[in-house]
This record gives sequence, structure tokens and C-alpha cells, in this order.
Amino acid sequence: MSQSLKNLERQFHRIAQLDHASTFLAWDQAVMMPDAGMNPRAAALAEIASMRHELMTAPAMGDWLNDAAEDLAKGSIAPALANHVKEMRITWQQSMAMPAELVHAKVIAGSRCEHGWRTQKGESDWKGFLKNFKEVVALGREEALARQAQAPERFDTPYDALLDLHCAGDSQALIASVFSELKAELPDLLKRVLEHQAHQTPKDLSGHYPIKNQQALSESLMSMLGFDFNAGRLDVSMHPFSTGVLGDQRITTRYRETDFADALQATAHETGHASYEAGLPRELSSYPIGSSRNMCIHESQSLLFEKQLFLSRAFGQAIMEPLHKHLPSTASFTADDIWVAQTRVKPSFIRVEADEVTYPLHVMLRFDIESALINGDIEAADIPDAWEASLNSYLGLSTNGDHSIGCLQDIHWTDGAFGYFPSYTMGAVNAAQLSAALKREHTDWQDRYAAGDIGFVREWLSDNIWQHGCEFESQELMKNATGEGSVASHLIEHLKTRYLHETD
Amino acid sequence: MSQSLKNLERQFHRIAQLDHASTFLAWDQAVMMPDAGMNPRAAALAEIASMRHELMTAPAMGDWLNDAAEDLAKGSIAPALANHVKEMRITWQQSMAMPAELVHAKVIAGSRCEHGWRTQKGESDWKGFLKNFKEVVALGREEALARQAQAPERFDTPYDALLDLHCAGDSQALIASVFSELKAELPDLLKRVLEHQAHQTPKDLSGHYPIKNQQALSESLMSMLGFDFNAGRLDVSMHPFSTGVLGDQRITTRYRETDFADALQATAHETGHASYEAGLPRELSSYPIGSSRNMCIHESQSLLFEKQLFLSRAFGQAIMEPLHKHLPSTASFTADDIWVAQTRVKPSFIRVEADEVTYPLHVMLRFDIESALINGDIEAADIPDAWEASLNSYLGLSTNGDHSIGCLQDIHWTDGAFGYFPSYTMGAVNAAQLSAALKREHTDWQDRYAAGDIGFVREWLSDNIWQHGCEFESQELMKNATGEGSVASHLIEHLKTRYLHETD
Repeated sequence: MSQSLKNLERQFHRIAQLDHASTFLAWDQAVMMPDAGMNPRAAALAEIASMRHELMTAPAMGDWLNDAAEDLAKGSIAPALANHVKEMRITWQQSMAMPAELVHAKVIAGSRCEHGWRTQKGESDWKGFLKNFKEVVALGREEALARQAQAPERFDTPYDALLDLHCAGDSQALIASVFSELKAELPDLLKRVLEHQAHQTPKDLSGHYPIKNQQALSESLMSMLGFDFNAGRLDVSMHPFSTGVLGDQRITTRYRETDFADALQATAHETGHASYEAGLPRELSSYPIGSSRNMCIHESQSLLFEKQLFLSRAFGQAIMEPLHKHLPSTASFTADDIWVAQTRVKPSFIRVEADEVTYPLHVMLRFDIESALINGDIEAADIPDAWEASLNSYLGLSTNGDHSIGCLQDIHWTDGAFGYFPSYTMGAVNAAQLSAALKREHTDWQDRYAAGDIGFVREWLSDNIWQHGCEFESQELMKNATGEGSVASHLIEHLKTRYLHETD
Repeated sequence: MSQSLKNLERQFHRIAQLDHASTFLAWDQAVMMPDAGMNPRAAALAEIASMRHELMTAPAMGDWLNDAAEDLAKGSIAPALANHVKEMRITWQQSMAMPAELVHAKVIAGSRCEHGWRTQKGESDWKGFLKNFKEVVALGREEALARQAQAPERFDTPYDALLDLHCAGDSQALIASVFSELKAELPDLLKRVLEHQAHQTPKDLSGHYPIKNQQALSESLMSMLGFDFNAGRLDVSMHPFSTGVLGDQRITTRYRETDFADALQATAHETGHASYEAGLPRELSSYPIGSSRNMCIHESQSLLFEKQLFLSRAFGQAIMEPLHKHLPSTASFTADDIWVAQTRVKPSFIRVEADEVTYPLHVMLRFDIESALINGDIEAADIPDAWEASLNSYLGLSTNGDHSIGCLQDIHWTDGAFGYFPSYTMGAVNAAQLSAALKREHTDWQDRYAAGDIGFVREWLSDNIWQHGCEFESQELMKNATGEGSVASHLIEHLKTRYLHETD
């Protein structure tokens, strides 16, 4: 191995150990930490972030990367390691792209805007919000241009350079093309689903479900889904999340005493995220090449576990035994009762409460706005009108000027996290596509799901996604796994099958 | 403020943030982490330790310390900050004293010896142990000499240089003088206590005490003792411990379903440690001057909470209400029943199970041996004979060659942690002395303890110990608080009062 590669691996190993610290300090903060621990914890996380930045932008890094490129050309690094070096370079470029003043200005403006938003949202105060938000948009554009200028060969638009941080490899053009297929079908499909469901009378599943029993049920579900409790934990937090390192995956969920379905669905979702992370190539865990591909793939794993698997009619059979065991008061509910209640569709204002059919419409609305905003095609002040127009055409709704259920509902934009939203729906698209390929190979999937035998799903995902880390670009990965890059047709087919034919 | 001091404070602040990370990663490892997290966690902790070492031994550190000394002399640093600079220098010296090869050799030899000990202990295999342990002793002596050579003005003996790591400021000569007072009294006192207690018939307190209820009881006790749950937590671990940072103190205890007294006593003990840490000067928390004085003072705080306060007859009254509330099956036990059962004295082989009267004898035995060993007055091979002789003269016992209950019982020496044992008994000595001074000032202490009103204890300890951090040397601290340096007479008086007169 060349000395340059050794140096790079050593440096990335050190960075990974700081990331290990940040990961578990952040988990502790969300799950365990008492309130008064906030200030010392924030100071520690800030200092560790600054040490990480120093390591990543150390002057020698550029030299090592150039040397490694030469070593590759000379053959003193095996050609198979080319992507290893390439992913290190991209990670390094992402860290170098932002001038320190811009980072600083972004933190200040983002904190101010987010802080204000916490009250402005409830008061539907768009004008007040806009004052702070203009600066966030200006800095977001500046960031996008700086990132684009640093690697112009990789980005056609400024927005592409922000997408790169979350959806690496999936360009604005690609996402727009997938979304336009969806847009052509979804509004009409939605109408048909609403007509179809008008004839259903879903059962009321609410009751009294002790948290302790729900927790045991969530753990049962995780075990059925292949989660290894010797290498991970389930805890409770305000918002469900998944984090950890190889060997120690931590997921959280949240419980309500009156409802069991939401916590269980969140558990299935986070188990999908955790399974992907736990299945990444162990020996590469310190390096960019060994990490998850991007959020469009990550979300596809959580949505495959949640929507394709857990919410299927077949798996609904398998969950009945643990459900009745841990929550005896559900004894009168059939699998059908639960499935019907969990698959109700209704256009609504709030993205995070949206069902599987309307969710993509919420995301596409945001994608249209934020890409135009970053590329300079619209201004921040234009957002409410653009929101209202799309909301009406996609979902047939109007906020009637109540921005708290409109453009002020999400936290993402307040601190300048543009380019994240598309991953939710790209994840749903990829999940449906992967699931379709899996079912083509395993035609007995329904019997297996119904029996709670999902080892073959994990095996297929491991072979096709997990073990590859960042070895392939996202579209290459999808093509290898399914025969084609991301296309919307499988999600549309899935929604028709589930919501019109009820046969998934 | 001078630039040198600014640089030093910045560097120590960064080090403190790495320590924050190690602290909570170690807590997580003991309390939360699943088994498979071990390897990645070990790698992260090792890398953070190495980053810490790099910061501490950075070439500029020596220059900054020299500049700061000059700035002090010139008056560009306020004289009040002299000890701030002095404690930074000592911490730095401690890090610089060990050549890297010696650190490495010590880790290897210590790991090997400790690993072997885990089976050799059970098999009483002294010969097998000795093979590995000889190397640990040789390296311990090398370390002691290296540390002594680096600051000869501070250390009269090589053992002093190891004591410095745990008992800073309390020399071998001082400890030997305190211990010789104890030795002169304790064996005879022990005989009298045994005769006295021969007439008591303690009640059997064993029963079925659900863990959940014991936990609520421990939390009640902590609240009575002034623990702030907004700035800390209680959890469970294999061995009780206390850790954390200012604002976030984490203590642990362990429960047995058949007994409630041990867990409760451990909780009182760890609450003492945590209270000291939580009471250190907030604005100095990143610097050596702001940390706890030494383990002889630290242990005095835990033992003051556990032995002087919690185990007093008076406080025994206060605990009855929460005890009966959380463990209704204790309703038939009186405060006297519990006090008598918890203060039984019996010479035994195992230090960690020893009572308050015999515990110091176990410690003095180890102090005699380890100081002679490090100073080269005896060899490792001489330990079993020396152990047997002291055990007989102090406690009237013989191991009859069973080293598992003799010199192989403790983990401390296996990886070369010489100089720690004395802090247990110096802590008991200091606790009794501080408690005596506190009671002189607050003659109504018995009524207050009985009412569970211990705010005045915390206030007194804060004024006299906690808020001073490392502003004073340990003996100066004791003198300011009690009028004299550490002396054994208060512990002896306390033991007589409690175990002969039953009036504490």
C-alpha cells in the first residue's frame, strides 16, 4: 500500500473516532441527558466538531490525495481501491468548500431564523419570519455557488451542489424526471383511492396500551425484523431516530398510551435504517467508501421495512401473535381491522402526518420551491403564493393564509438545510422498486411475510445494498439491484396494488 | 490577561472537552452499551486518549508555562492566579514524565497480568500470577523513578511520585504517620467492639424487595441528600460508581432482590462523590485548579455522606418514612433494628466486604506492602509472607495459603495502580475529622439529621471543601476546614462513639 493511502486511512480513522464520540454524545443528549447537562454538552460537541474540521482540512490532506491519485495512475495503489480514494476526495472537498466566514455566518443566521420560527410558526407570522429567512436564503445560495465552483464538473446547477450533501449522485435533473412521472399519476390516483376508501368503515383502534407492554411489542417486532439486541438498543426520545456505529445501533421510538400503531410503525422504520448501517462493510467502517450511499438509499431501507414489509397485508398476519400477547386488549382486532385503519388516505396540510399516497405530493411541492429558490428563479417572498398554488393543484387544499399549516410547518429550511426534502420521496420510490425486484426473485414472498420469515429480505438487501457501502454511485447501485435506475413506476404500481386492489 | 495564560486556558479547555467525551463514553459503556459495541468503543476511547496526550504534550505547552511563570513574576498575571498556573504545570509534568515506550510497556504488561489474574485468583495460583506480576512491579518502579526524577523537589521517595497521581499533596511520610496512630489503637478497639457486640442479637433484614421499589427508595434518599435530578441521573451498573461533568453527574448503584441496605449505602456513598463534583467552582471547570483536590478528599466526601451521615443513628430516623413507603414489607423493622444490623463488625478476609472498623486494617496492610515494593525494600515474591504476617497481627486471621482471599483478591495491583489504596482510609480519616468540625459548629446536628434536614451539611462542605477545587493543597484544605491537618484521632473517636457507646 502506498504511503499516501496509509496516511489518508490513518487520518480518516481518527476522524471516525471523533464521529463515534459525537454520535453517542448526541444520542445521550436526546435519550438520557438531564437538562442541566445542555451547556457543557454543547461546548463539548462544538469543540469535537472543530477538531474534526481541523483534521479534515489539515494542509497535508490535499497533498496525500494528490499523491494517492498519482499512485493510482502508477499502479502502486490497486485499481480496485480507486473508489476508496475518490470517496475520500469528495468528502474532503465537501469540507474544504465552505470558507470559515460563510460557515460562521450560516450558523448565526440559521440559529436566529430557527429561534424566531419557534414562535412565528404558531402565530402564522410570515412577515416576521421572512426578515430572518432572507439572510438564510442568501447564504444558502452563496454556499451552493461556492460548492458548485469547487467541483463544477459534478454539478449542473447550484441546487445540485446542496443535493450532493444528502442525495449524492442523484441530480436535480434526475429527481425532477422521477417526480414528473409521479406528478402525472398521483393526483388522479389519489382521487380514485378516496372514492375507493369511501366505502370502508375503519375500526377505532384506540384504547389503553401501557407503555411497558408497547415497548416489549416493539422489541418483538425488531427481533422479527432481524435486529440484533447484542449489537444495539431501543429507547425512547421526543422524535424517533436511528444512530450508532457498526456493532452498536441505537434506535428510538415514542409511545402514546392511547395508540399502538404509530410507535410500532416508527419502530419498523428505524429498524430499517439501523439494519442498513449494521450491514455496511465492517472492515471499511472508518472510511467514506464504507458508509451509507446517500439519504435516498437510506430512506429506501427504512421505508422498505416500514411501508413495503411491515404494512403489507401478509406481514400483518405475522404481527398478530405478538400483538395479542403483549397487548391483550387488542384481542378483538383482526389483521384486516388493523390494516384498514393503518392505510387510510386523506389529503391534509401537514407533511409529517401524511399517508403514503399524499406524502410524495408534500415533498414535490417543497422540491419545486427550494430548487427554484437556490437557483435564483424565485425569491423567498414568493414562497407563500407558490405553496398555495401547488397545494391546490396537488392536494386540492388551501391554507387560507394560515402559514402555520403551510410554508412555516417544517424546521428544515429555517437553518438552511436545503436539498434534504427530496430524499423522503426518492426513498419511497427506491423502496418500491427494490421491493418489486425482491418479489420477482422470491415469488413466495407472501407466504414468508405471513409466517414472519423475513431472513431472505435481509439477505437480499445485504447482497444488493448494504454490503456495498459507497462502492457504487446511487443510480448504479439501483441498476445493479433492480435492472434500472430510480423510476417512479414501481411506487405507483405499489400504491395501486395496496390502495385500489388491496392485494399487497 | 497574558497571552501565555490565554493559550494555556484554550489548550486545557480543549482537553476538557475530550475528557467530557471519554467520561460519557465510559459511562455509556458501563451502563448502556450492548456487548458488540466493545471493539468500536475501545478504539474510540484509545484514539481520544491519544489526541488528549498530543494536546497535553504539544511542544508549545512548555513554552507557554515558562512564559506564564515569567508573566507572574513581572506581574502581568495577577498573583491570585499563581495556583492556577501551578496546577496546570503539575498536570503537564505528570503527562510529560512517562516516556512513550514505558507507557506502552505498562499497558501490555498490565493487560497480560490482569487477564491472567482473572483465572489465577480463583485457583489461588500465586506462582502463575508472580510470573506476570514481576514485570508489572519492575515497570511500576521504573515509572516511580521517572516521575520522581522529573520533579525531585516534590517527592522524597519513589512511592511518593505514584501517590501523587491519586493522593497529591499527601506524602508517604504523612500517610505513614496517620496510619501509625491508627495501628496503635485499632486492633485493641476491634477486640472491645467484638466483645461489646457479642451481646447484641441483630435482626435478619433479608426479604423480597422489588428492584423497582428499591430504585425509587434510592432516588428518595438522593433527594434527601440534596442531589439535583435536573443535573444528574441514577442508573445501575455492575459496580457502583460516580462520574460526569458539572451540570451532569451520573451515579450508579446495584440492587439485590433479597437485601435493601447495601444498595442504599452505595447510593449514599456515590451521592457524596457526586455532590463534591457538582459543587466545584463552575467557571474553572475546564482547568486543573477547578477539579477535585485528590482522592483522599474525594473519598472523604463519599464516606462523610455514607458513614458519618447516612449510617448515623440520627439520620436512621429520617430514612424510616421513605423506607416504609417504598418497601412496605420493612414495616416491622425499627430504626434500631436497621442500625444494629448495618453496624455489625467482624474481622474477615475480603476488603470490599469489610466493616467500618476493620476496613482501615485491610488498607494499611496494602499500604505497607506496596510502598516497600515500589521503594525496593521488598520483592514481589515476598508479598504472600508479608500479607500473612500483617493479616495475623491486624485481624487475627490466616489465609492458610488461600491467596484468592489474600493477596490475589484485589484488581488494583494487577495493572500497576500503586498508590491508590491509601486514599480509602485517608478518606475515612478526613471524613471523621470534617464531620467532627461540622458538629462542633452545628451542635444541633442530631435533631437536624433525624429530621432529614441536611442542607447545612452541604453548605458547610461547599464553603470548606467543594468550592475551593484545587486552590489549596490537601493538608492546607483540611487545616482551613478543621484547624489541623489529617489526624487519626477523629476516626478513632468516631468508631468508639458508634461501636462502643452507640451514641453517634
